Amino acid sequence: MEMQNAKGTRDIEPENMIVKNKIIEVLRKVFERYGYNPLDTPILERYDVLASKYAGGSEILKETFRLKDQGDRDLALRYDLTVPLARYVAMNPAMKMPFKRYQIGEVFRDGPIKTGRYRQFMQCDADIVGSKDIAMEAEQMKIADTVFQELGFSATIKFNNRKILDEIMEKSGIPENLRIESMLALDKLEKIGTKKVIQELTGKGVNAKSIETLMRLMERETDNNTTLERLKENLGETQGIVEVEELLRLLELYEVPAEFQPSLARGLAYYTGTVFEFYIDDSEITNSAGAGGRYDNMIGDFVGNKQGYPAVGVSFGVDVLLEAYKEKHAVKKKSVVQALIIPLNTYEESVRAMTELREQGLNTDLSQKKGVSKGLEYASAYGIPYAIIIGEDEVKQGKYTLRDMETGQEELLAIDRIAEKIISTK
Amino acid sequence: MEMQNAKGTRDIEPENMIVKNKIIEVLRKVFERYGYNPLDTPILERYDVLASKYAGGSEILKETFRLKDQGDRDLALRYDLTVPLARYVAMNPAMKMPFKRYQIGEVFRDGPIKTGRYRQFMQCDADIVGSKDIAMEAEQMKIADTVFQELGFSATIKFNNRKILDEIMEKSGIPENLRIESMLALDKLEKIGTKKVIQELTGKGVNAKSIETLMRLMERETDNNTTLERLKENLGETQGIVEVEELLRLLELYEVPAEFQPSLARGLAYYTGTVFEFYIDDSEITNSAGAGGRYDNMIGDFVGNKQGYPAVGVSFGVDVLLEAYKEKHAVKKKSVVQALIIPLNTYEESVRAMTELREQGLNTDLSQKKGVSKGLEYASAYGIPYAIIIGEDEVKQGKYTLRDMETGQEELLAIDRIAEKIISTK
Repeated sequence: MEMQNAKGTRDIEPENMIVKNKIIEVLRKVFERYGYNPLDTPILERYDVLASKYAGGSEILKETFRLKDQGDRDLALRYDLTVPLARYVAMNPAMKMPFKRYQIGEVFRDGPIKTGRYRQFMQCDADIVGSKDIAMEAEQMKIADTVFQELGFSATIKFNNRKILDEIMEKSGIPENLRIESMLALDKLEKIGTKKVIQELTGKGVNAKSIETLMRLMERETDNNTTLERLKENLGETQGIVEVEELLRLLELYEVPAEFQPSLARGLAYYTGTVFEFYIDDSEITNSAGAGGRYDNMIGDFVGNKQGYPAVGVSFGVDVLLEAYKEKHAVKKKSVVQALIIPLNTYEESVRAMTELREQGLNTDLSQKKGVSKGLEYASAYGIPYAIIIGEDEVKQGKYTLRDMETGQEELLAIDRIAEKIISTK
Repeated sequence: MEMQNAKGTRDIEPENMIVKNKIIEVLRKVFERYGYNPLDTPILERYDVLASKYAGGSEILKETFRLKDQGDRDLALRYDLTVPLARYVAMNPAMKMPFKRYQIGEVFRDGPIKTGRYRQFMQCDADIVGSKDIAMEAEQMKIADTVFQELGFSATIKFNNRKILDEIMEKSGIPENLRIESMLALDKLEKIGTKKVIQELTGKGVNAKSIETLMRLMERETDNNTTLERLKENLGETQGIVEVEELLRLLELYEVPAEFQPSLARGLAYYTGTVFEFYIDDSEITNSAGAGGRYDNMIGDFVGNKQGYPAVGVSFGVDVLLEAYKEKHAVKKKSVVQALIIPLNTYEESVRAMTELREQGLNTDLSQKKGVSKGLEYASAYGIPYAIIIGEDEVKQGKYTLRDMETGQEELLAIDRIAEKIISTK
């Protein structure tokens, strides 16, 4: 038998998990600060729920892992956290609206493997159900802004409105049956460039005049207001224009820097209004770090009350945040351990010192290697910042040798002072 | 289509998730304080890895969810976190030993459904690989003691040693082919009582004289040392006796209260030395809250170096801890939100107040209901402790009405004072 991971999955070793846990903690705290409550739904779902025509659509179903239980029931691994939310809402009709929940969990897609794309990955979603208030979009973009700030890197928040996109296509004379495909082509504008998008649109049967109008209307001007004004001149006071105007006002009130980008589409079919997407600034990473938008019909369709469950959701990709964090911060912590105690014929005393440091909340461990040099080698292999050497002389003095593993500097200190010192450099 | 959970799975609503997140945070912090590093392995594993003869055994394989990917590869959902750890160690031969890791994650078993037993549940494990030191058992029992203390309830830590159990059976004249079954019967001693265990042993073909000796030797005396002394008189200076003696000395040094219980077996076949189990005191909950022990061969068998990977692991069941927490603490927090702002024609001012509170780290939300009474109703439905009513008069004064939702008391305060007050009652 070969020892291998299942294809498209990977282990996340301590070095990365330490950062990942930090990112998850930031996301949780920010979601809660904005009034979202934790909810957990299972990884295993009934296949018929995930395959509902109101759910992810046929594309995503092709990538859904299916299985059966011993009772021969059709099950599947969830491919996102939104469809399970819709099921949860449908099963809890007495729920007080609006309902704000966040969920952090693994999702599964049996798709082709590319760099940075896995068959199991973590999503972090915050959704509000039961609110038509466009301020919710502003709030979720503010959440993104806060998350990036707390993680210590800057990102650009881009947004658009599906209605605007539709109105632009209408205005450009693109027939309805070509709009979804045209939208998906336009979504790639910034990735593949104008020329290739035009080629793709032509290939799909959009005529040259339509393409020309479309490309002109899609362009972003120097700022949000100018972009909006130009579109307004072309489209008039449409529903899309009214919504973007309202959102721009709210973004100012919520103090969110964001860019109105009329070509932004977002892949998923169920969005009905605002869509947004986040990109890390000055980064090698070109994938979005998160995205979301308003989807006013999907949950209602599930519940069987189409108008009743307007919703807005934001989703962060932990993998991208992890890569960005490592790119922006020169951190490579291989261990959470802050101090390794090295006993030299002082086992009992050393255990007591360790207990004391642990009780003070310090992550402490005891070397199981023989002698100082092997102990130091272990501390060094795991990047533990301090070693505490406890020999018989030290025990007599009531002071231990604290060694800074980076500088090699050593000091003889009482255990309280050692604790203080380590805490202060935490 | 019926909106249902997959059989044997359930949603965990905010009220329970708030507690569950707290428990997970305690576990994580304690694991890290004791020098364990976070590792993550995927939920999807190759079926041949999980089905290895060195892994969970045929019983657990019957309960393993199997599935295939699009490439027709045999996959399975992990049924524990220990076998994936063994695979990880096998795949990383350069790893510096001892290696201490913890993992918190969902596991899956397609077994019969009973109360409190689900097909997807969360395990929280800490394991050390590459150490024969019996102090590791003491450390993991100390971890349990610390976890229970930090969660605010008391529990009893029971332990035994597989070698002692084997030596007792040897001494009682139980033939080797009946020992595993006898061990499993004895494990139920405290659950089903002496009489039923004797019946079960008789049914399995153990003779009356053997049963009598066995039951006598199994008994726990008033304290650990008396129990050990009596066993020593009967068994002599065996390996099991030597190990328990050593562990008792270490438990004292590590300051862990624990009960030596010679009948304790623990179901899993792979344990080789110390085994331990934790039970919540004065509780309706009879399931163990966690358990573990030494398994010196399992990982080595996986790696193909039987002696090279001695290991000790402890595992906590979050569901039991969650039930115990709710039983011991009269907490029913339906929301993390600390304050709900109710605007009365003061939308912009209210958003600014909310932003300020959020920036101070307070979980704050804005009512989307019309008027004070509907806003208060919403706060009350979600158990939000404070409402902040912001009317036009209040805006003029620069002070807002802070309402304590439990007492109904109201105070007119500046936003800074409101923040202080809420933080102080956090």
